[in-house]
Amino acid sequence: MKYGIMGYSGRMGKLIQEVFNERGHELVYRCDLKEEFRDDVPQVIVDFSTPKAFDRLMVKAEDFNCSLVVGTTALKVDDIDRLKAYAKKKSVVYARNFSKGILIMKNMIKGISGELHDWDIEIIEKHHRFKKDKPSGTAKMLAECFDFEVPTSSIRMGGIPGEHSVLIAGLGEIIEIKHQAISPRTFAEGACSAAERIVKLEKGFYTFDEICAMEEQDG
Amino acid sequence: MKYGIMGYSGRMGKLIQEVFNERGHELVYRCDLKEEFRDDVPQVIVDFSTPKAFDRLMVKAEDFNCSLVVGTTALKVDDIDRLKAYAKKKSVVYARNFSKGILIMKNMIKGISGELHDWDIEIIEKHHRFKKDKPSGTAKMLAECFDFEVPTSSIRMGGIPGEHSVLIAGLGEIIEIKHQAISPRTFAEGACSAAERIVKLEKGFYTFDEICAMEEQDG
Amino acid sequence: MKYGIMGYSGRMGKLIQEVFNERGHELVYRCDLKEEFRDDVPQVIVDFSTPKAFDRLMVKAEDFNCSLVVGTTALKVDDIDRLKAYAKKKSVVYARNFSKGILIMKNMIKGISGELHDWDIEIIEKHHRFKKDKPSGTAKMLAECFDFEVPTSSIRMGGIPGEHSVLIAGLGEIIEIKHQAISPRTFAEGACSAAERIVKLEKGFYTFDEICAMEEQDG
Amino acid sequence: MKYGIMGYSGRMGKLIQEVFNERGHELVYRCDLKEEFRDDVPQVIVDFSTPKAFDRLMVKAEDFNCSLVVGTTALKVDDIDRLKAYAKKKSVVYARNFSKGILIMKNMIKGISGELHDWDIEIIEKHHRFKKDKPSGTAKMLAECFDFEVPTSSIRMGGIPGEHSVLIAGLGEIIEIKHQAISPRTFAEGACSAAERIVKLEKGFYTFDEICAMEEQDG
Repeated sequence: MKYGIMGYSGRMGKLIQEVFNERGHELVYRCDLKEEFRDDVPQVIVDFSTPKAFDRLMVKAEDFNCSLVVGTTALKVDDIDRLKAYAKKKSVVYARNFSKGILIMKNMIKGISGELHDWDIEIIEKHHRFKKDKPSGTAKMLAECFDFEVPTSSIRMGGIPGEHSVLIAGLGEIIEIKHQAISPRTFAEGACSAAERIVKLEKGFYTFDEICAMEEQDG
Repeated sequence: MKYGIMGYSGRMGKLIQEVFNERGHELVYRCDLKEEFRDDVPQVIVDFSTPKAFDRLMVKAEDFNCSLVVGTTALKVDDIDRLKAYAKKKSVVYARNFSKGILIMKNMIKGISGELHDWDIEIIEKHHRFKKDKPSGTAKMLAECFDFEVPTSSIRMGGIPGEHSVLIAGLGEIIEIKHQAISPRTFAEGACSAAERIVKLEKGFYTFDEICAMEEQDG
Repeated sequence: MKYGIMGYSGRMGKLIQEVFNERGHELVYRCDLKEEFRDDVPQVIVDFSTPKAFDRLMVKAEDFNCSLVVGTTALKVDDIDRLKAYAKKKSVVYARNFSKGILIMKNMIKGISGELHDWDIEIIEKHHRFKKDKPSGTAKMLAECFDFEVPTSSIRMGGIPGEHSVLIAGLGEIIEIKHQAISPRTFAEGACSAAERIVKLEKGFYTFDEICAMEEQDG
Repeated sequence: MKYGIMGYSGRMGKLIQEVFNERGHELVYRCDLKEEFRDDVPQVIVDFSTPKAFDRLMVKAEDFNCSLVVGTTALKVDDIDRLKAYAKKKSVVYARNFSKGILIMKNMIKGISGELHDWDIEIIEKHHRFKKDKPSGTAKMLAECFDFEVPTSSIRMGGIPGEHSVLIAGLGEIIEIKHQAISPRTFAEGACSAAERIVKLEKGFYTFDEICAMEEQDG
């Protein structure tokens, strides 16, 4: 697979190169705020950068007529609408989190959230001191599993790769569902699986859930 | 409701009296290894004692022709068969755990256990130093949610009321689902809800899940 | 020992009666916002009530000329000065937390807090939904172990008896020191040990640390 | 600094190269079970390999007349005696754990272990599924902080970089001191600090604690 990276010199950009190279893919296009290199036409561009780079991403996608894997959090509703419009001619995966564990956690919570009206629910998320947005996109996604407001506490410390806890407390008992990313490579691996899948699809807008469901079906 | 207790002088027996009295029920029969008191015919006997008392429980149930709420762990398959036979004429609830939180946890795990073949799964359970059986009945129940063997570590320390963790680890991420009993009263409250429900049912063998599902339906 | 309770009908008041009675002490004076009962002159008054009751406590202490065990949090500096003045003629124990575990935790943290200038430190404390003050007195006490500001997150949920975590994070590793109260009885037991000790002392102002240190010395 | 690595193709060997190179040091000697490369005489050899390679390590150290940083766990008492003998002419650091966090944890526990005779103590350690020895060298080191036997549970799952918990439980409260390695790079960084320090020392046998204490003194 020939691929490109938006934000190739950032933290996630480097991990994406590492994982994609290990899995035998060829980096043919890379771009960051200062520079742009192009060796060939990519089949897919992977974007884990910032909302600021979004316009440039869409211009490049049109140029290359390629698929997109987008994991940039904090995109606006308008941006997502543009992705959906583009998905009418090429395949697009958009997700706020590319980890299978978070997906499993989300499915668990959705399965029981209807039974929890008598319980107190809170989310605690912890990330490294360099993460600026609060709460994390994943915490917001988990909160949306409930049909009522869920308070969220955000902790920013040291080098924590990412931890999300959903606490469910009654008067006599407490349940905690906690996800810990061991390494940020996890997200790059999820993005690689998504990219490998999506270059085979003609068009359409997909969530990471849908990509994983296809994998399950294939066995 | 008029109720009886097998093992009334034990740890759980005392808590059952406390909770049932608070909810306005009348203790009319109580029995332990040394003594037996009977003021009236109970509508239900609650048994959180030991497998040794099981024969006596069945004799008394026949005498009183009453319903049963049984939470004694480590019963034999034969004992459970006798409960099921008795359930053909009177209502019986049998469960290894009477907490709603554990039930929620079990339902979450059942919902995802089919997707976890690539993950490492382990259970850690912690209880007070007075608990003798290892692993706990609840830990066994959680392990049975998987269609493969799940290793379990048992910790016995201090006054821990009861903690069960299911760990789900991949190479790049880890999920933990943890239940903590804040107070052993939780189990007595679950038993009381079960007793209140079951005295209204003519006959049948029920799990705690089924009792809770009826409550949900009633709203 | 003959003892009295300020706030005898509150949550902590009831636990204090339970524990002191089990240890063979006699309740001879009790007072809350509405009522006051006096059977005899107490040797010590135990006060885990609110700052509002503080004036009354001091009047009663003078009347009875008795020792004091004070665990009310959120007292003002002036109030504590009054306790210290009173301690010139009678013995007084004042502490924001009467648990030995919290004391051990505090000593651990004090022992290392000087080495932690390169680390990120945060405190998370969790309590039941009925606790109104944020952060807890214990969290403030733990934060004071450091010679720099420590951010604190407070969670109020369900029936959590009390949990305090000090998180110490570097870029490559994280340490957590966590204390969980299994039962609020723990604090009543600490107060009882303090009361038993203090009625033997003529006068002086003592912390719970100092009371525990005396116990250690006795063996 | 010119340095060498025993076991350069293993997991830790690669991380050592990564970290030492980032800090500007020059790899001039590397050796594993199959091959050996030598470009120059190293000032120090870093060894995080296996006890099997120990003889070779000592032969090479004599050849090069260089310092040693040894983090191989499960060395025999005889091996350590040989290191101590060698330390009479060159400087040697030997430690079972090269993380500052573990050192802080050890110091905290040593500071309070004398007060814990009435408490139940247990250690739980978790590592990735590839780690074969149980319990970990670090868990043994932590257990040695107590003057009584401490039970240890070892969990091997997924890609957990390393987690050590010391649990201290009473009847009414529980304390947990937990260390999590976020990344195995932490240990390589500790080894690099040790190597940088030791090449400046003529001779002597040092623990990682002593190396860190020197750093503290320098400011």
